[in-house]
Amino acid sequence: MKSRKIAMIGGGFIGDFYVHSLHGQRRMDRVHVVYSRSESSARKVAERWGIPVWTTDMKEAINHPDIDTVVVALPNFQHLDAVRLAAEAGKAILVTKPLGRNAKEAKEMLEIVEKNGVFHGYLEDLCYTPKTLKALESVKNGALGDILWVRSRETHPGPHSDWFWNPEFSGGGAIVDLGCHCIEIARNFIGKETKPLEVMCWADTQVKPIDAEDHAIALVKYASGAIGQFEVSWCFRGGMDLRDEVMGVEGTMFLNHFLRTGFEVFTAVGEGEYVAEKAETATGWLFPVGDEVNALGYDFMFTDMFNAMDEGKQPMETFYDGYVVNAIIDACYKSAKSKKWEPVELDIWRGREDVRKGPVLKDYDDKFYLIKEEKIPNGTVKLILKDKKTGEIIQQIR
Amino acid sequence: MKSRKIAMIGGGFIGDFYVHSLHGQRRMDRVHVVYSRSESSARKVAERWGIPVWTTDMKEAINHPDIDTVVVALPNFQHLDAVRLAAEAGKAILVTKPLGRNAKEAKEMLEIVEKNGVFHGYLEDLCYTPKTLKALESVKNGALGDILWVRSRETHPGPHSDWFWNPEFSGGGAIVDLGCHCIEIARNFIGKETKPLEVMCWADTQVKPIDAEDHAIALVKYASGAIGQFEVSWCFRGGMDLRDEVMGVEGTMFLNHFLRTGFEVFTAVGEGEYVAEKAETATGWLFPVGDEVNALGYDFMFTDMFNAMDEGKQPMETFYDGYVVNAIIDACYKSAKSKKWEPVELDIWRGREDVRKGPVLKDYDDKFYLIKEEKIPNGTVKLILKDKKTGEIIQQIR
Amino acid sequence: MKSRKIAMIGGGFIGDFYVHSLHGQRRMDRVHVVYSRSESSARKVAERWGIPVWTTDMKEAINHPDIDTVVVALPNFQHLDAVRLAAEAGKAILVTKPLGRNAKEAKEMLEIVEKNGVFHGYLEDLCYTPKTLKALESVKNGALGDILWVRSRETHPGPHSDWFWNPEFSGGGAIVDLGCHCIEIARNFIGKETKPLEVMCWADTQVKPIDAEDHAIALVKYASGAIGQFEVSWCFRGGMDLRDEVMGVEGTMFLNHFLRTGFEVFTAVGEGEYVAEKAETATGWLFPVGDEVNALGYDFMFTDMFNAMDEGKQPMETFYDGYVVNAIIDACYKSAKSKKWEPVELDIWRGREDVRKGPVLKDYDDKFYLIKEEKIPNGTVKLILKDKKTGEIIQQIR
Amino acid sequence: MKSRKIAMIGGGFIGDFYVHSLHGQRRMDRVHVVYSRSESSARKVAERWGIPVWTTDMKEAINHPDIDTVVVALPNFQHLDAVRLAAEAGKAILVTKPLGRNAKEAKEMLEIVEKNGVFHGYLEDLCYTPKTLKALESVKNGALGDILWVRSRETHPGPHSDWFWNPEFSGGGAIVDLGCHCIEIARNFIGKETKPLEVMCWADTQVKPIDAEDHAIALVKYASGAIGQFEVSWCFRGGMDLRDEVMGVEGTMFLNHFLRTGFEVFTAVGEGEYVAEKAETATGWLFPVGDEVNALGYDFMFTDMFNAMDEGKQPMETFYDGYVVNAIIDACYKSAKSKKWEPVELDIWRGREDVRKGPVLKDYDDKFYLIKEEKIPNGTVKLILKDKKTGEIIQQIR
Repeated sequence: MKSRKIAMIGGGFIGDFYVHSLHGQRRMDRVHVVYSRSESSARKVAERWGIPVWTTDMKEAINHPDIDTVVVALPNFQHLDAVRLAAEAGKAILVTKPLGRNAKEAKEMLEIVEKNGVFHGYLEDLCYTPKTLKALESVKNGALGDILWVRSRETHPGPHSDWFWNPEFSGGGAIVDLGCHCIEIARNFIGKETKPLEVMCWADTQVKPIDAEDHAIALVKYASGAIGQFEVSWCFRGGMDLRDEVMGVEGTMFLNHFLRTGFEVFTAVGEGEYVAEKAETATGWLFPVGDEVNALGYDFMFTDMFNAMDEGKQPMETFYDGYVVNAIIDACYKSAKSKKWEPVELDIWRGREDVRKGPVLKDYDDKFYLIKEEKIPNGTVKLILKDKKTGEIIQQIR
Repeated sequence: MKSRKIAMIGGGFIGDFYVHSLHGQRRMDRVHVVYSRSESSARKVAERWGIPVWTTDMKEAINHPDIDTVVVALPNFQHLDAVRLAAEAGKAILVTKPLGRNAKEAKEMLEIVEKNGVFHGYLEDLCYTPKTLKALESVKNGALGDILWVRSRETHPGPHSDWFWNPEFSGGGAIVDLGCHCIEIARNFIGKETKPLEVMCWADTQVKPIDAEDHAIALVKYASGAIGQFEVSWCFRGGMDLRDEVMGVEGTMFLNHFLRTGFEVFTAVGEGEYVAEKAETATGWLFPVGDEVNALGYDFMFTDMFNAMDEGKQPMETFYDGYVVNAIIDACYKSAKSKKWEPVELDIWRGREDVRKGPVLKDYDDKFYLIKEEKIPNGTVKLILKDKKTGEIIQQIR
Repeated sequence: MKSRKIAMIGGGFIGDFYVHSLHGQRRMDRVHVVYSRSESSARKVAERWGIPVWTTDMKEAINHPDIDTVVVALPNFQHLDAVRLAAEAGKAILVTKPLGRNAKEAKEMLEIVEKNGVFHGYLEDLCYTPKTLKALESVKNGALGDILWVRSRETHPGPHSDWFWNPEFSGGGAIVDLGCHCIEIARNFIGKETKPLEVMCWADTQVKPIDAEDHAIALVKYASGAIGQFEVSWCFRGGMDLRDEVMGVEGTMFLNHFLRTGFEVFTAVGEGEYVAEKAETATGWLFPVGDEVNALGYDFMFTDMFNAMDEGKQPMETFYDGYVVNAIIDACYKSAKSKKWEPVELDIWRGREDVRKGPVLKDYDDKFYLIKEEKIPNGTVKLILKDKKTGEIIQQIR
Repeated sequence: MKSRKIAMIGGGFIGDFYVHSLHGQRRMDRVHVVYSRSESSARKVAERWGIPVWTTDMKEAINHPDIDTVVVALPNFQHLDAVRLAAEAGKAILVTKPLGRNAKEAKEMLEIVEKNGVFHGYLEDLCYTPKTLKALESVKNGALGDILWVRSRETHPGPHSDWFWNPEFSGGGAIVDLGCHCIEIARNFIGKETKPLEVMCWADTQVKPIDAEDHAIALVKYASGAIGQFEVSWCFRGGMDLRDEVMGVEGTMFLNHFLRTGFEVFTAVGEGEYVAEKAETATGWLFPVGDEVNALGYDFMFTDMFNAMDEGKQPMETFYDGYVVNAIIDACYKSAKSKKWEPVELDIWRGREDVRKGPVLKDYDDKFYLIKEEKIPNGTVKLILKDKKTGEIIQQIR
């Protein structure tokens, strides 16, 4: 294993979270340089985490000779410039979500890193939560059978920095901020090789006085017939709601990543400290998370990124994934306006062209298919059967 | 209070549940006659619940001179005939959900009961669960502020009788069977006086070899800007998933009516009895419900119906509500085919024509509106503000 | 079924709850007379629930000619007098928990009702919660095998009337107030025919400036070797904690009757109404119960009482049960002082004299007993075996 | 930070868990040598985790010149010998729980490491779970006020190796195996400087054919009046139950570390893999944990140990803590036999000699203390007050 020296480009909320994960648990990789537009931010982050060098010159940070890896933790509209600089400097590049403000930007970044042949990772932390990783493994092992539907929900009372609220800087509202997580979570469960075909999206500005959507819901239809559903909002009250549900032919999964994960506190007096991301109250019933950087996926994400570098492999999440996500988001915005299903436009598609999967025929006997069986309150078992020849549906008591 | 004498028209699963609720807890109302197409079913139900009269002649049951109330617990395609007979007999009529197979049938039933001036109730039990009733009261008391979104989900491994699976008899698949509940739950939270405007629906036959949808998701847009979302399926594995979520400007609600309601059992050996509706396993971890007829709303539903009769008032759920639900379902089926938003066609509308509600402006000071405030990990409080004149969004640390 | 006419003796908190249950859901039984020491209380309760007669003369209430059933909802120190009056009047008597302040009082009440041959029921509502009833049925059906341990916990921030806090009036503190529930719940799971042998109890006054215990924990050992554990407190913060856990040789049960039963509300503004018994906050995250009178067992309790009267049978909970509970409580108070296990003194014992059950020997093969098997992370299965002859314990990998 | 080179002494279940944590997340510390009594075990662990050296000679492993830290992951009866060897070799020593089979052994180990002046850490992982660490911080910040009671429960279907079941090798049964965790968790919440005074314990062999207890419950009384309660069992069915509850004057905490932490799976087919520690079923409803080594505390435990070494400080858990735990366990075994409270015998006590805390007097006004206030169903607020002069308790409606 090779210890990595990192330039952290961005000293805000997410940069802080990244360093917390990178420097926690005695990881061998270290942030060596931190860049922030503001001198005071840069210095504060450097002091807080023992980072030797800080600067307000992004190019200097990226080209620092000791640095082998650049982590981009900037507002969305600055990703492209940072990626170009880092690619030209030949450094490994890890970019926070979403990759671009739209598919055009994302595609440009993808082409830059591939042309320059540099390692690139897409920092999609919520695909790396411990629960998600274990759940994905179970799905791969067949515990749920074929996947039919994934609901991924991320809602909270709104982001923490001004630029998020300005669609020119961010690329949109809650969809581009939170939907990118949900889309990629669903893709992982449904299978990344399965093509997203079309999208139906509702978006509205229900509460906040802004020019972007503060609430949106979308259905993404995949070539297998599976549906990826996302629900995102900046109007949710009560903290941060981070939940996924997965339905397969043979099973079901519920993942809760934040509230109600086994840690419940009632306090009549509070404690005057930070409680949890997006928590709205400091007294009464609270639902903290023990180890946020682990629970939110940062630890496993960076481990995967650096291990992939060591082994000369691609990480689980690449710029290509970021590009697909942006393409789906673009279709969402189109659909929210046109009020109909809109195709996902993918100039570059590296997966399979799947054939639609349909209903499953289970033999009951020579004459019938089994539709279902159920024990009813009087204790008998009822069978719903379909005649193989006539197609008629009948019931039998057993 | 007047003790009611009831004819139960239908001796299947739902009729049995109804009698269980009506005869439980020493209620003064009694089922006096039970009708079933099959002699053995009629006799069995009569014996099980101590019902004095049973018959296979529906007209005889409805016109029995001791009877003042007719409960229709028949397959969907038989509702209209039974309602006509009962209305002509001048009896009070309670009909199980959905009212009709479509809005046309529902409207005809509504017109029949109103023309004949008989009491009519729509047996929408899930609007009467103890949690829903209390939650509706809290919403009326303002605990959540204006309602923005309601998600109502009902999924299970499929219904228990053959006619459900045949769209000719039932009017459709999971939408008409389960969506009717979800739609009416959302209407109650959003406000019944608020007009449903249009609908976007996805429906598919993913698993079962049938001619109707076994999985569907829809968004119903209301005149206030609120969204009622439903998710229904006959492919869900793991029991019966009955959950609602409500988002308002000032708060959030999660209601779970079935699994995970504080009753958890692990059994290595099982007990050889009926565990719970739609349960799929009899050993391992099980999540029973203590009092199903109460938890699923039957008790409060019948109490409301009979109290309303006593007081000469309308019950909470009437045939008019059933008609509105059917109209929304009709729009769902249209949208699932056309792949765009479809208007809800309501020939009869008895509510308000609402004006759209929009974002809320909260004053921060003379210069700014407050968008949000949040405590961040380093302990400071960050404000997101909007300039009242320029519209620019900025952040401040406090 | 015979409609009952009831005199409610007591117009406080619990009397109010009782009438709520008795008059809810169109039950045929009615409260006809209400007695309270205070004229204004009596009148208020009568008006609230439509009770035709109110009085401040207890004897008059009990002897009212229309009354066939007397419900005693008085402070503990007044139970004996009320029972004597009602028994002499030949009325059916239902008494709230605990039966007496101690076993001596309880025994006297038992002897009075048995001598007078009147129907008597012990209003132990928490043994009648829907979850408890269904759980008891599962235990009877063998789902958990032999019962090893029952934990019953009832804690809240303290009772609502002055007399509770005065041990002279109540007979003690949290043990006599809450422990009576927990003890009887455990007895029902372990089997009422199984003799409670001895008790170990800790009790302390940790927070409240009173002469009785505000926190106590006890273990009750039964003849079968099973342990009934109770935890009671008036210092708990966060609402009312009502949970039971049951361990058997073949399974486990968790019952939660109040907080976290599938109803979760976040409200930033509150609603200015009563939220739930013992709730401490009106904003933030709240966990209401939909139908408190059902969830807390009142409905099923009264149904059982009146059905038992109709059928000339004993109800599930009788004065004899109340007496056994009081005897266990007496032993608890002794043990809390002596700091050792104290025998339960039962002058009257109507159950079995059980032989102790011990470890279970499961054959693995001719040579070994099976102690356990478990799948370990590397995927193999490990067996722990006991040699039948030598008694040596070994492990095997399969 | 200094990278540590570790000898892992023991190649069983717990050693494997330790290496998993030590080598996960790119930690800079590495296991360099692994010792196991069995050659095949040693080789397997070395291969699985890329450990360069393996041996069946414990002394060789400990004295390996590259090694600076020895982790003892052996059966209880072998701790003393390994500690002696490592202390004489001058290596830092980390020992798995419990420190000794009894306080005598633990004290001897404490004296050895202190005499030799080597770094020593007590590997009490469950005090390091992310939830526990955050909860301890909240308690230190005053969120719960003074601590009154801690319940710590660890129960499962029994341990995975033969020596656990033999009290000669292990020092006892479920108390010494699981109670050590629970005792130390409670000590951390109540305050390690607070003296444990006496113990009351019940222990029995209810199910398994062994010479040690398979189920035990104890109360540990501290000088502050607080109670530490533990419940341990090898007869629990349904997986591993790892929960803590904490009551303080101002608040309450519930910690769930394993089942029901936001990850729920229903599978009709299973996946043929290891699901979770002590899981009993592979189909039906399952409740996995995402990142077991993090959730169970291993990550933070080793981080604390190595950071403490770097900084020349004591870790959170030392041999002294292990000694106190063993002394409490000794008192438990005494009490289980004598059937009364037994004193905790601590030859070495390094904390405070606390004065007992008692009830708290809160002024209501000049005349009264406030005992409690509560909103009651009719909407009024009821106050329970104590007269400052007469001590009489009265109620007032506000």
